[in-house]
Amino acid sequence: MSKQTIPPLSYGVLLYPQFEVLDIAGPIEALNTLARMPDQDGISFGGMTFCYIAKTMEAVTPGPSPPDKFASKQLYIPHYTFANAPQLDVLLVPGGLGSVPWHDLLEAVDFISGRYRSLQYLISVCTGAGLLAKAGVLDGRRATTNKAAWDDITALGPKTHWIAEARWVEAGNVWTTSGVSAGTDGMIAMLSKIFHNHSDIMNQVVTSMEYSRVTDPDNDPYASINGCSDVLPIA
Amino acid sequence: MSKQTIPPLSYGVLLYPQFEVLDIAGPIEALNTLARMPDQDGISFGGMTFCYIAKTMEAVTPGPSPPDKFASKQLYIPHYTFANAPQLDVLLVPGGLGSVPWHDLLEAVDFISGRYRSLQYLISVCTGAGLLAKAGVLDGRRATTNKAAWDDITALGPKTHWIAEARWVEAGNVWTTSGVSAGTDGMIAMLSKIFHNHSDIMNQVVTSMEYSRVTDPDNDPYASINGCSDVLPIA
Repeated sequence: MSKQTIPPLSYGVLLYPQFEVLDIAGPIEALNTLARMPDQDGISFGGMTFCYIAKTMEAVTPGPSPPDKFASKQLYIPHYTFANAPQLDVLLVPGGLGSVPWHDLLEAVDFISGRYRSLQYLISVCTGAGLLAKAGVLDGRRATTNKAAWDDITALGPKTHWIAEARWVEAGNVWTTSGVSAGTDGMIAMLSKIFHNHSDIMNQVVTSMEYSRVTDPDNDPYASINGCSDVLPIA
Repeated sequence: MSKQTIPPLSYGVLLYPQFEVLDIAGPIEALNTLARMPDQDGISFGGMTFCYIAKTMEAVTPGPSPPDKFASKQLYIPHYTFANAPQLDVLLVPGGLGSVPWHDLLEAVDFISGRYRSLQYLISVCTGAGLLAKAGVLDGRRATTNKAAWDDITALGPKTHWIAEARWVEAGNVWTTSGVSAGTDGMIAMLSKIFHNHSDIMNQVVTSMEYSRVTDPDNDPYASINGCSDVLPIA
């Protein structure tokens, strides 16, 4: 049975210590808003399901180790581990300082690698692209990532064509976005593509969010601010 | 003893059922980023403290009642109740569908009213302005709120001059912002004012967030989209 049911209904967000809050919260805001839309054209937005997935069931925080008095106070409670997560249509992989030492996240990399073929869409935000690269998902694809961590993350994907001046990059069913805030624009662009036959639904979502959206995927001032250039795949 | 110590160190976020995720997450992203900046000019950003405050210690969700399968799965764990919250320098009051029936949030309104005088800054996002209005904090002030809920929320503050075309409004130490995404711009503007002697720190925060910031408080297309006009205070 094909997993290409339309629309995607089950959404999962991968968590790990020291993820970046807005990497998940901007996309989640767009999804929460979509999920409360009235049914239309045979699509039941109320049928959408959400889960957080992590290595263990322990609370995950965006704060550092040892814990600080600020971000470490913000707890995110996983619903599943990598071992027991349900079937997913869409997986969101955030970035954050915790993703840069990717050796600490081998279970997350394995989860992405193992689940990719059964997903309808995979989307990374910020340095989350580094985990996708290590999972092999970006081999032979175009992708982008956080511009302040450009050299570190692009080095993780030697078979990837890294696009510097990009708010987000669509490559088949794999979407990668630039840093932090770019995830919101990338998720909205992805959902706009998924619901292209229902174009007004995402306009309603954006209006409800009163969002000042970046609509051009090539509009990225942070590439030049950070002195980033494209990185070609090693042949 | 004056509470006007500079800079504010203790930040609290008020939670209630069916708050809007990005109302808190955008501002928290800016604050998390600031809180991990290296000390400079005698300011210890690592000294910043964070807490969630709610009516009880039970987890709060942005989802509806009865719970749905999406937003209701996202749990936020309070650190304090309205009864035992510590001294705060800054209080953030989010909006969301749960704030419109404000009669259900009388304890939150009392908390805002009781705490206002000991705060350095009070900031509301979206329909959170309705709770500030019911707390009497907006009497005689200029303010703004969510543009889709304009009539409902402005009616809660008959002594307030409600500004329709505003991404955010600064009125003394009370900041109010328009809907959802506007909270991020309002919080960044407020922090930029607080740290005006350290202007580069907020540029660093915005660059780290790769944020496409609205810098003009009067730049608000959603007022006309929703057909909102200013509401003058009743004399």
